[in-house]
Amino acid sequence: MPAPRPDALIELRDELRHFADERDWDQFHSAKNLAIALSVEAAELLEHFQWTETAADSAKVRAELADVLLYLIRLADKLNIDLAAAGREKIVLNARKYPADQARGSSKKYTEY
Amino acid sequence: MPAPRPDALIELRDELRHFADERDWDQFHSAKNLAIALSVEAAELLEHFQWTETAADSAKVRAELADVLLYLIRLADKLNIDLAAAGREKIVLNARKYPADQARGSSKKYTEY
Amino acid sequence: MPAPRPDALIELRDELRHFADERDWDQFHSAKNLAIALSVEAAELLEHFQWTETAADSAKVRAELADVLLYLIRLADKLNIDLAAAGREKIVLNARKYPADQARGSSKKYTEY
Amino acid sequence: MPAPRPDALIELRDELRHFADERDWDQFHSAKNLAIALSVEAAELLEHFQWTETAADSAKVRAELADVLLYLIRLADKLNIDLAAAGREKIVLNARKYPADQARGSSKKYTEY
Repeated sequence: MPAPRPDALIELRDELRHFADERDWDQFHSAKNLAIALSVEAAELLEHFQWTETAADSAKVRAELADVLLYLIRLADKLNIDLAAAGREKIVLNARKYPADQARGSSKKYTEY
Repeated sequence: MPAPRPDALIELRDELRHFADERDWDQFHSAKNLAIALSVEAAELLEHFQWTETAADSAKVRAELADVLLYLIRLADKLNIDLAAAGREKIVLNARKYPADQARGSSKKYTEY
Repeated sequence: MPAPRPDALIELRDELRHFADERDWDQFHSAKNLAIALSVEAAELLEHFQWTETAADSAKVRAELADVLLYLIRLADKLNIDLAAAGREKIVLNARKYPADQARGSSKKYTEY
Repeated sequence: MPAPRPDALIELRDELRHFADERDWDQFHSAKNLAIALSVEAAELLEHFQWTETAADSAKVRAELADVLLYLIRLADKLNIDLAAAGREKIVLNARKYPADQARGSSKKYTEY
């Protein structure tokens, strides 16, 4: 029986480690620089929605989403954060913060902050 | 034998669908609004590195990383984009763009743009 | 005696009004879209510092600064906000929040948030 | 006859210099850190439009606009860039790039990029 495919977040994390290692790029990947890069890529993605509700170029949007994902994985790796675990914890916290029976039909989160 | 745990990106995508559905929040989750939210969360993460090389509060940084991940997954879902596949494709493209033997020791990517 | 040159923020605001009017672009300039554009331009500026302390191309940095300024002026205009007055008020508030005698030598603002 | 009021951008630049000087904060104000701060403030402004077309709290939006302006002025000062001149130049360049007679009625800029 074949080994199950590893989790995509783990697989991509390992590939990105290898990629940076092969190019000796680790020296540029401080957490601060990666946090900047992540924010810059998120803005490049947002640019596609700047004057429109629907992005015109879906291939470019796909590539921008990938850039955000890759920098996010790399930053989490440099900070020793388990991204999937952090995501699961946040959903639990959000569920407590916005109980479904109270939040339903209410847009409180979306009108107050 | 237990079923293998589903891929984290798939698992979180499904939980976020359920979460929005239970609260009737799908109406707020246009691609444009989610792209804004992603960019805002990336900036909140970056804020921790604003005046420093090392973020002081690792628990908050972890929570901000999770927020970025969750909005990224949700946006990809609304756009019918397979996030893991897009990430794998981008690594292949980057490997062609920056061949290891030429990129090694060179910081060209990091000094020209 | 010549009339004094109008304040630059007023002059640029009026030129931008005229610019949008001539092109019938007012329809695209909702406050939301302008806030997105401002954020995207700020990220383009930040990109020049992504992997470095000192931006390599000062002409491009100058152009990016100008883009941020122009969208900021346009957004303030659409929201009927007097940008110079808002800036002056904020300095007064900041001076109260961080009294010089207490803030001096302290980097509290820069280490806590 | 009273001296004319100095240009607001000059006045605010000088006040910000004095403000940082009094608090010995110049040490934190590298161009890179100020570019991050500018981007973070632009995202805080954008957050008010995250789920809505019209920001609910106009006083907060005004304060966020002021924050963007102040960091922009401070960054330009650290880079020795004349912000008003850069803005005027950019309008001239934009006018050449998008001639009014061709751009009128066309949203090309807003649908292609």
